[in-house]
Amino acid sequence: MNQHINRQVRLKSRPTGIPQAEHFEIIEEPVPCPTDGQILIRNIFLSVEPAMRGWVSSVANYAEPVSLNTVMRALAVGQIVESYDPGFKPGEYVTGLFGWQNYIVVDASGIQRKVSNNSLPISTALGVLGLNGITAYFGLLEVGMPTPGETVVVSSAAGAVGSCVGQIARIKQCRTVGITGGPEKVRLCRDVFQYDHAIDYRIESLDEALSATCPEGIDIYFDNTGGKISDAVLRHLNIGARVVICGTASIDSWEPTPLGPRVERHLLVNRARMQGFLVFDYQNRYTEALDALTEWVDAGLIHYREDILKGIQQAPGSIAGLYRGENLGKRLIQIAGI
Amino acid sequence: MNQHINRQVRLKSRPTGIPQAEHFEIIEEPVPCPTDGQILIRNIFLSVEPAMRGWVSSVANYAEPVSLNTVMRALAVGQIVESYDPGFKPGEYVTGLFGWQNYIVVDASGIQRKVSNNSLPISTALGVLGLNGITAYFGLLEVGMPTPGETVVVSSAAGAVGSCVGQIARIKQCRTVGITGGPEKVRLCRDVFQYDHAIDYRIESLDEALSATCPEGIDIYFDNTGGKISDAVLRHLNIGARVVICGTASIDSWEPTPLGPRVERHLLVNRARMQGFLVFDYQNRYTEALDALTEWVDAGLIHYREDILKGIQQAPGSIAGLYRGENLGKRLIQIAGI
Repeated sequence: MNQHINRQVRLKSRPTGIPQAEHFEIIEEPVPCPTDGQILIRNIFLSVEPAMRGWVSSVANYAEPVSLNTVMRALAVGQIVESYDPGFKPGEYVTGLFGWQNYIVVDASGIQRKVSNNSLPISTALGVLGLNGITAYFGLLEVGMPTPGETVVVSSAAGAVGSCVGQIARIKQCRTVGITGGPEKVRLCRDVFQYDHAIDYRIESLDEALSATCPEGIDIYFDNTGGKISDAVLRHLNIGARVVICGTASIDSWEPTPLGPRVERHLLVNRARMQGFLVFDYQNRYTEALDALTEWVDAGLIHYREDILKGIQQAPGSIAGLYRGENLGKRLIQIAGI
Repeated sequence: MNQHINRQVRLKSRPTGIPQAEHFEIIEEPVPCPTDGQILIRNIFLSVEPAMRGWVSSVANYAEPVSLNTVMRALAVGQIVESYDPGFKPGEYVTGLFGWQNYIVVDASGIQRKVSNNSLPISTALGVLGLNGITAYFGLLEVGMPTPGETVVVSSAAGAVGSCVGQIARIKQCRTVGITGGPEKVRLCRDVFQYDHAIDYRIESLDEALSATCPEGIDIYFDNTGGKISDAVLRHLNIGARVVICGTASIDSWEPTPLGPRVERHLLVNRARMQGFLVFDYQNRYTEALDALTEWVDAGLIHYREDILKGIQQAPGSIAGLYRGENLGKRLIQIAGI
């Protein structure tokens, strides 16, 4: 394979807010050679996710920051080209933190899992059947703890995680209300992801819309945004409500910490709970989530959408586009044929 | 008893922030007469507590607001003068929401409990062996869920609830750090309530003091204040930390909601939890708490302090004094001999 070039997207400088194209550069390297126990993988789909802003930030986070002048950390799904590990064979599809690049050499510990379900495209391994779906599954079920008849509100409701949360809540017989931005996403929420109601925060008064769609208050808020959307939702919490903090996409920078209305009173009066959630804490239970998600997708109970950019040259600007909300569905970059 | 006068402290006007003396007036009424099934009680100690600010506010709360021109709601301990209920006898001491007044007529449902432990003063029924102790017990154990070796930080650490929280945490083998205001309270925290460390928020940099006293971070924060103290504490949370929101004493008014640093990031990065807590939700388990607290006080494992004002004329200004932090220990008003 060494006649090929390995194009890598490297972190060139550290953004203070949302990473833009200019914070990355594309470098050409020779394709690495696997040796004993190693596996050469050709990446096909690269993932783009909101969490990447945190990964390239120098501010304290749950993950080590990506070092400058190294390949951007990213989940990817690829195909094995050469293998010197008996557990893996050329031609198999696998996922892992393979980075924004064409090729990578890893040992078996660098592979998350083989992609085995043949009825669904391999790209789903980065979305609904990947960390996005798993995040929705554990965040909603373990932290949100829905019971039938409860009202569940989701921010970034049409996003890769949010759309899955809404549909799992529906499977669990909850009323679901999605908050999203723009008419296309509102339509997606209603027609594809089957929310009972969808609110366009860009044109509606959130307070009025929440009163109208959640007349009995909100029992679970699955929060992917933080910020003003959350401020409005918290005013409608029921007694015993649970707020699952999964992301803070609406906050451009945490340095310095932005101000917002204090939450203590909402939580005290309603005996409500706000809890941060990281999917990595559930690593030893991923299989359970994947089994359930696969069954639900196969049964037509969970629908998904993908937004596939073509070519690695799209990667540097792809995070900023995500924060502008330009994607409809899980954002991926396809850099090779299947 | 009708030759006596029943002096009542009534709510005259609704404060926007902390209730001051001028929001109340003292009225003289004839002592009420009990009839069949009723009990006449002579109050001895009246309770003063931070929660009273909420009870007289018109802003949404966990309790119905006290109506204008009615007796101020308050817990009290008193002695039965006449009883037309076979379950109660003259001379017995009882507690209940008897209000800021000398006498009250109730039926059996208006009595919380008989005060039976003869080894401790009856005033403890309003503090360490009353709602304050019970609040500390369930808030710390059920919401905070301490395990041995964890670091527990308490705000209003010398207060009626806080002092009890710190000592229960110590019984549960936690490291305890109290935050309080002024040298006398710091001394109380160290010498009487046996905190491992006490911080004077009025003169110390909270950030530095917390770094010094909690070098391994904070696992549980029992929050009686909210505001800037909480802002500092949240910066030191450990992964999996629990924040028990029990009171918001440092916030003068919630109308409009004051601003503060947003908390989402702390909670997300640390997978931490903030949860509001109201003792009334544990009403059916009060006996369990009282049994444990009585045992600990009797065994010398929990110490308490009382700040006893004399005469009902002290009542109107007593809440404001509490918010100024002028009391050392549980604030009570004694209006009759025992």
